[in-house]
Amino acid sequence: MEKPNLKDGERIDDLQRNGYRIIQDPEKFCFGIDAVLLSGFATANSGDRVLDLGTGTGIIPILMAAKTDAKELVGLEIQTESADMAMRSVELNELQNRLRIVCGDIKEAAKIFEPASFDVVTTNPPYMVKGHGLTNPDSPKAIARHEVLCDLDDVLKAAKVMLHPGGKFFMVHRPFRLAEIFSCMSKHRIEPKRIQMVHPYVDKEPSMVLIEGARDGKPRLSVEPPLILYDKPGEYSTFMKEEYGF
Amino acid sequence: MEKPNLKDGERIDDLQRNGYRIIQDPEKFCFGIDAVLLSGFATANSGDRVLDLGTGTGIIPILMAAKTDAKELVGLEIQTESADMAMRSVELNELQNRLRIVCGDIKEAAKIFEPASFDVVTTNPPYMVKGHGLTNPDSPKAIARHEVLCDLDDVLKAAKVMLHPGGKFFMVHRPFRLAEIFSCMSKHRIEPKRIQMVHPYVDKEPSMVLIEGARDGKPRLSVEPPLILYDKPGEYSTFMKEEYGF
Repeated sequence: MEKPNLKDGERIDDLQRNGYRIIQDPEKFCFGIDAVLLSGFATANSGDRVLDLGTGTGIIPILMAAKTDAKELVGLEIQTESADMAMRSVELNELQNRLRIVCGDIKEAAKIFEPASFDVVTTNPPYMVKGHGLTNPDSPKAIARHEVLCDLDDVLKAAKVMLHPGGKFFMVHRPFRLAEIFSCMSKHRIEPKRIQMVHPYVDKEPSMVLIEGARDGKPRLSVEPPLILYDKPGEYSTFMKEEYGF
Repeated sequence: MEKPNLKDGERIDDLQRNGYRIIQDPEKFCFGIDAVLLSGFATANSGDRVLDLGTGTGIIPILMAAKTDAKELVGLEIQTESADMAMRSVELNELQNRLRIVCGDIKEAAKIFEPASFDVVTTNPPYMVKGHGLTNPDSPKAIARHEVLCDLDDVLKAAKVMLHPGGKFFMVHRPFRLAEIFSCMSKHRIEPKRIQMVHPYVDKEPSMVLIEGARDGKPRLSVEPPLILYDKPGEYSTFMKEEYGF
């Protein structure tokens, strides 16, 4: 394999899937376990078109490319540096014929892509409400974590427009916003269909929630058994070892 | 203690709390673990006025009388036979000075009680949508389990009217309706503040969800660690043994 095209501060991490790797800059933003869990929670059928909203360095569509038979994956990212890293990771993994990175704004999605043209939308959006404890709002980390450039409503509005009726929506978020998330999903006619709470330990509060919705779906929510990350400090649970190879 | 006043088919069960007992008729409806868990999940401060909507045989206010320092507890029940049993259980436990049973319709709550006069509302409402798999809609069991005489919206509307701003709402329900529940709570300005999923086993889907809301509360949801009922078939979990004496 030829020498990858790396910039100052960047490194390459092995994703332990299909030999795929990803280019990241630890000073800017590295993917977290949330993105990895979402790629396992989300489903895509053979032939599906999948859109990842706010793809960052492309971690979710790269893992979805490894885990599913989706025909075409598209990652939309507003930050040019992250999008550029994602594009180089696509080349690094020779995924050019399945995975495409587009640099653009979630709020402009309807102008960038054909409406109702996707079967699946995935997203790991900023979790924190804009301004809460934010000292450097222009930094890549702040933009990835706080609702600086887009908020929950923007993300769900874009998902609604991009999905065809019956299309599936997958998101990872923080449990403390779950009531607002359901309300916002309903507003945009993405019916909550399935959730799974992610707990660090079985006796601790959940740190994340995985959510599946269906565009114009019928109301009926499935709640999965809790996903437990660790059996004890430093030791991943059997599920995490078996499912994700941690 | 004098001989309790029992009717045909009725029996007395020990509640394992303060020596309290309850009159039930197994042919009609017996309380379930959901009511017991709700009475542990709900909180009431010293001096609080607590209203239980659809109290049945009074299980929730009787347990709340044992577990809290609430000053006054009121149970509202539409079915005369259940209300009558509840009234006799109040006498049996000599709770007449704290606990009052009122026979009436949840939809008429605003006419029966002074609006905004309660600090806490509890409810274990019918879980099932009216008509779903219902063969005998007039039976006490059907009325307790299916939305025959009142639905979720009726219950939340009554709770909104009965609670003062900041007042607390506690409900047990089925997880498959959680999105609808949050939406209906928001509609009636009872903000979801805390939930706990109840799983039969740690690796199984939840069978119940315990929900706390606050009248005119600020949005921010706490999700508790999962409540696990059993360690293995027939053996309650350590939590259940310690907390509920099962």
